[in-house]
Amino acid sequence: MSLVIVGSVAFDTIETPHGRREKIVGGSSTYCALAASFFTQPKIVSVIGEDFPEEAIDFLKEKGIDLKGLKKSSGKTFHWEARYGHDPNQRKTVKTELNVFEVFKPDLPVEYRRADIIFLGNIDPDQQEEILAQVEHPKLIAMDTINLWINTKVDSLLKVMEKVDIFFGNEEEIKLLTKEPNLIKAGKSLLERGPSFVAMKKGEHGVLVLGKDFVFGVLAHPCEKVVDPTGAGDSFAGGFLGYLDKVKSFDEIALRRAAVFGSVMASFVIEDFGIQRFKNLSYLEIEKRYNQFKNLVSF
Amino acid sequence: MSLVIVGSVAFDTIETPHGRREKIVGGSSTYCALAASFFTQPKIVSVIGEDFPEEAIDFLKEKGIDLKGLKKSSGKTFHWEARYGHDPNQRKTVKTELNVFEVFKPDLPVEYRRADIIFLGNIDPDQQEEILAQVEHPKLIAMDTINLWINTKVDSLLKVMEKVDIFFGNEEEIKLLTKEPNLIKAGKSLLERGPSFVAMKKGEHGVLVLGKDFVFGVLAHPCEKVVDPTGAGDSFAGGFLGYLDKVKSFDEIALRRAAVFGSVMASFVIEDFGIQRFKNLSYLEIEKRYNQFKNLVSF
Repeated sequence: MSLVIVGSVAFDTIETPHGRREKIVGGSSTYCALAASFFTQPKIVSVIGEDFPEEAIDFLKEKGIDLKGLKKSSGKTFHWEARYGHDPNQRKTVKTELNVFEVFKPDLPVEYRRADIIFLGNIDPDQQEEILAQVEHPKLIAMDTINLWINTKVDSLLKVMEKVDIFFGNEEEIKLLTKEPNLIKAGKSLLERGPSFVAMKKGEHGVLVLGKDFVFGVLAHPCEKVVDPTGAGDSFAGGFLGYLDKVKSFDEIALRRAAVFGSVMASFVIEDFGIQRFKNLSYLEIEKRYNQFKNLVSF
Repeated sequence: MSLVIVGSVAFDTIETPHGRREKIVGGSSTYCALAASFFTQPKIVSVIGEDFPEEAIDFLKEKGIDLKGLKKSSGKTFHWEARYGHDPNQRKTVKTELNVFEVFKPDLPVEYRRADIIFLGNIDPDQQEEILAQVEHPKLIAMDTINLWINTKVDSLLKVMEKVDIFFGNEEEIKLLTKEPNLIKAGKSLLERGPSFVAMKKGEHGVLVLGKDFVFGVLAHPCEKVVDPTGAGDSFAGGFLGYLDKVKSFDEIALRRAAVFGSVMASFVIEDFGIQRFKNLSYLEIEKRYNQFKNLVSF
C-alpha cells in the first residue's frame, strides 16, 4: 500500500525543563513520516524554505521517505517556538512564523494521488480540503487539527471531518470542538460527524480509540524522563498509519495494534529533543517496547 | 483470611453537576468495606454519633460486614461537605466537621487483632500508628492518606509508611509527598521508604501499580456519566484488598487482578450518589465489567 502525509516541515525552538534547542528540525509531517518510516515508505507533501539544511533532507531520504511532494520555496522555513513546564501535557507556544507555509498551495504529485492512506496533518482545513480534491479513491483518510482551526475555522474543519475515516485529536481539542466535558461522550459525538474512528490522545495518560462498536485504550509507557514532548502526537499518527499501511488491514484488531505502535513511537520520540531519538532507533527496540506495552496492562 | 478496615463512617453532603445530596451515608471505611463485601467479610473499625441511622447499620450488616469495631459515641457523626465540577478529578471540600471523630481512639476488638490484612484508611497517621501497635503479625498492611496529613504530619506519615506493604495514594498526593513532578519517579521513590507496592490513583485516567520489579496499569472504565466521584478511591482499595483476601495470595498476578477489581468497584460507585450503587449491585455485574476492563486493553 502507500501512505501520503501532508503537514509542516519546520524549524522548532524548544525549551523544556531538560534544556533548550534553537531551530532544530521539526514539523508535523517530519515527525509523522519518520515514525511511519519504521513500517512503510511514506510520502511527504510539504514546503520548506531556502534555509532548510541539506543534511536533514538526506536523513529523511535515508529513512526511505519519498520527498517528491516536498517543495522548496524562496523564503524561510516555517518556525515554531514553544516552552514546556514539568507537566508535559501543558505547553506554551511562544512564536509561530509561518514564512513559506503562509502561501503554501498543496499540490500532490501525480503518483501520490492514488495513495491508499492519506494523512491530513494539522494544517488549515481549507488546505486539507484542497488535498482531498486531488486524491483518487483512497482506502483510508485520517486527519488531525489544532485549537487554532477549532477557534477560527470550525465550519471548514467540520466539512473536512465529514469525509475522513479517522480523526486524531487530543483531549483538550476534542472537548473544545464538541463543547462536551466528558471525553467519551465527546468522542462518540464526533463519530456522528463522519469518522468511523476517533483517536483521543491524552498525553502521559495514554490514548483512547473509539469505533462505532468498540472502545480501546492504550496506557502511555511509564516514562521517567520526558526530555521533549514535541512531536509525540504526530509520531503517534505516524506509527499508527505506518502500521496500517504495512499490514494492509483496517479491521478492529489492526486498529488496536496500530494504536499501540503509535504509542510506542510517541514514547520513543519524547526521550530526546526533536527527531534525535529516531536517528538511532532500531526496529528491535520498537518490538521490545511493544511487548512492554502488552505486559504493562496484562492481567 | 480476614480483612480489617480502619477509617471514617460519615455523613456526606455532596454537590456535583448531576445534583445535590444532603447528609447521605459515606465515609472512607463505609465505601471500602462495602466494595470489599462483594469478595469477603470485612471488619470495620470506626466511630459514629448518636444520629447515625439504624437502617444504614442494618444495610452494612446485610452485606456481611462485621461491625464489632464500630463504636457509637455521644455526639454527632463526622460530616463532610464537598463540591465537584465537570472534571471529576477536581473537588472542593466545603466543610469538615470531625465531631465524634475528633477524639476517636481506635481500639481493635480482640478477634480483629489477628487479621491477615489491615487497611489503614486516610485517618491521622498517629491513629494509624496506634492501630499497628494493636495488630499481631498481619500478612499485609495497606495504607491511604490525604493532603492534610502530608501538609501537617509528614514525619508521622513517613514513619507509618515504613511499616506498610502497600501504599495507596492519588497522583496529586504522591507528587506533593515526594516533591517529584514525574509520577513514575515519585512512585519509585516511595518504594524505597517501606512499601513493596504503590497504587497510584489517577481518577478518570486509571491506576498505576508499581512493584519492586514490575509496573502494571489499569485504564479506568470509559464512563459517560460520573454522577458522584465520592468514594471512588476507597472503593478501589476495598475491591483491591477484598479480592486479595478472597484469593489468599499476594503474588504479582493477584495484585494485577486486585487492581482491576478495585477499578471495577470504583467504576460502579461513581454511577450514583453515595453508596447507592452498591445497594443493587450483583457479582454477575462485577464479573461482566471485569471482562470489559480486559477487552478495553486487549490487542
